[in-house]
Amino acid sequence: MQVISGKKDFIESLRGKNASFLLALSYTKTSDIDGITQAGIPKYIYLTPTLDAEFLAVGDVRSMPKVAETPKGVPTPALITRAIHQLKPFKSVEFLNLGLKKKPEFDYFKLYNFGITPSCRIDKKAKIDAKKVFKKGLDFAKDYKLKSDYLILGESTPAGTTTAEASALALGYDVKGLFSSSFKNSPNSIKEKTIKKALKNIKKSDSIWKKLSKVSDNMLIFYAGFVFGMSKRCKVILAGGTQMASLLLLIDGIKKEKKLSLKSKNIALATTKWVYHDKNSDIKKLLQMLSFDINAYASEFDFSLATHPALQLYDKGEAKEGVGAGASLVYGEINGVSYEQITKEVEKFLV
Amino acid sequence: MQVISGKKDFIESLRGKNASFLLALSYTKTSDIDGITQAGIPKYIYLTPTLDAEFLAVGDVRSMPKVAETPKGVPTPALITRAIHQLKPFKSVEFLNLGLKKKPEFDYFKLYNFGITPSCRIDKKAKIDAKKVFKKGLDFAKDYKLKSDYLILGESTPAGTTTAEASALALGYDVKGLFSSSFKNSPNSIKEKTIKKALKNIKKSDSIWKKLSKVSDNMLIFYAGFVFGMSKRCKVILAGGTQMASLLLLIDGIKKEKKLSLKSKNIALATTKWVYHDKNSDIKKLLQMLSFDINAYASEFDFSLATHPALQLYDKGEAKEGVGAGASLVYGEINGVSYEQITKEVEKFLV
Repeated sequence: MQVISGKKDFIESLRGKNASFLLALSYTKTSDIDGITQAGIPKYIYLTPTLDAEFLAVGDVRSMPKVAETPKGVPTPALITRAIHQLKPFKSVEFLNLGLKKKPEFDYFKLYNFGITPSCRIDKKAKIDAKKVFKKGLDFAKDYKLKSDYLILGESTPAGTTTAEASALALGYDVKGLFSSSFKNSPNSIKEKTIKKALKNIKKSDSIWKKLSKVSDNMLIFYAGFVFGMSKRCKVILAGGTQMASLLLLIDGIKKEKKLSLKSKNIALATTKWVYHDKNSDIKKLLQMLSFDINAYASEFDFSLATHPALQLYDKGEAKEGVGAGASLVYGEINGVSYEQITKEVEKFLV
Repeated sequence: MQVISGKKDFIESLRGKNASFLLALSYTKTSDIDGITQAGIPKYIYLTPTLDAEFLAVGDVRSMPKVAETPKGVPTPALITRAIHQLKPFKSVEFLNLGLKKKPEFDYFKLYNFGITPSCRIDKKAKIDAKKVFKKGLDFAKDYKLKSDYLILGESTPAGTTTAEASALALGYDVKGLFSSSFKNSPNSIKEKTIKKALKNIKKSDSIWKKLSKVSDNMLIFYAGFVFGMSKRCKVILAGGTQMASLLLLIDGIKKEKKLSLKSKNIALATTKWVYHDKNSDIKKLLQMLSFDINAYASEFDFSLATHPALQLYDKGEAKEGVGAGASLVYGEINGVSYEQITKEVEKFLV
């Protein structure tokens, strides 16, 4: 495990403790823009959160014949999270419906519904009621029945790095070129064009809610509210890379503009080596833009012990993070799970 | 695992259950006596509890450039406890400040403070308010928020076997020559002289508190109170060798003189093979002096699988116990951790 920022004390204090894993499932129509994301099966990108949820919960997919993978055959990072859940199970795994087109098919698993509908393409204004969605997250933090010592917040949001970058830029953070994507070589043309177009709708005089309503996604806004509230109750790990860094920038922006108090000491970010070492993005720089200190970690896990070629594509940068893979790896590490075990467990899914 | 006394049922009943590990950090000025202890870096012996706490909590030391080791290069048994915590983490690891000169440097970890100051050299009267310290332990047992199924109580107290032996002798137990030390060949001259001088201050007519005030240490007295209280609430494992046997003698003496009730059925001792097989001490005999039955265990772990010469010194008797190493090994054993895993994990610290 590597420390991206802060000290290792936060994560060490959680060694051996129980974690609840929450997965935010969010579909934004931004992901329908042709070629904007690699996170799923073309034409069925909207199903990626649904399939990720099914796979994490029960170990197979039901809404499609096979797990989500990129056109190049890189399987979803949900495999990593699921492998960890099999080796050293989370105390609970639950799901948040933050605008799904199709609900996952499973029984007995909790899917929290908030009446949130999919957001629109950000180049055509996302049409989110940001204030309302934020409030829903804040309220959920009050109502949420904590079942364990700490929380891991993951997400499955195709095109999420696009909306994350647009959100951070809209709030005035100079993050250009610092964001990761599910592509090895970020498709800067489509992505950049979309972001550029989206930002044209932003006026400097817009309130923070108005800005986010136009260019963000439900996951970021809901989680912002949820993290404000939940971090007052327990330690919270944001499970993800640059998207979660953007979530922190949202929180930072909201904190400043709305003068809200934040227990940032209770928040950390955890991601993968693939994000941390990514040459096309810079998560550390993103975190340095925050007005508060943050503990952030990257697992050192990679697939160098794997024999399956689809997994080795991770080490080549074809996929980097998602479905809380990085935080799950860190969780495995502070619970005595070895890299050998993880590699073997993931490979079992691919035979 | 070997049964020193009692039956294996106590420890078997804890198989698979959650343990909280409490580490008592105690500095007695007795450890300043030149040559009395090997447990640490000469001139910085007082830092040993601080460094042990840091290493157990976060896996490195902060108050010194390197982990505590004896002048012969034997690394602190904290390495063993930490290795177990990495392989099969305790549910929580917390620390008790029972008279530190320097607090450990860590965030997020609980260090309970009781306003206890370091005790003096026992050859010059330790000047402990034993009744008060005992009461603090008793009170803490009432207040302590139990986070798991049972408790493991470890300690880091340089010169602790000296104060432990003096305490047992002061209470009238005939323990001469039964005590272990951090030296291979106990430095009987210095240690014995110190104990002899200390005992000269004891009058037979002294109350038990008065006796302990003169020759004991804060760890023993506080833990005595804590164990009286805590064993009424849950199972408690005293993690250590002859020092913890002395703690039991203290409890025995207090029980008799103060007519206190004790749920001894809920108490066990667990130590290392190195203590149990030590030819210069006899833990079994110490335990036989108790007026109640006690379950006591020794791990069979040794460093015969290790290649690092510093570790092999343990098997030569150069270090034997401390920081709850023995109980941690037993905890590892009832939680499916193999000796190979432990050896490898400890060796990782030494590369």
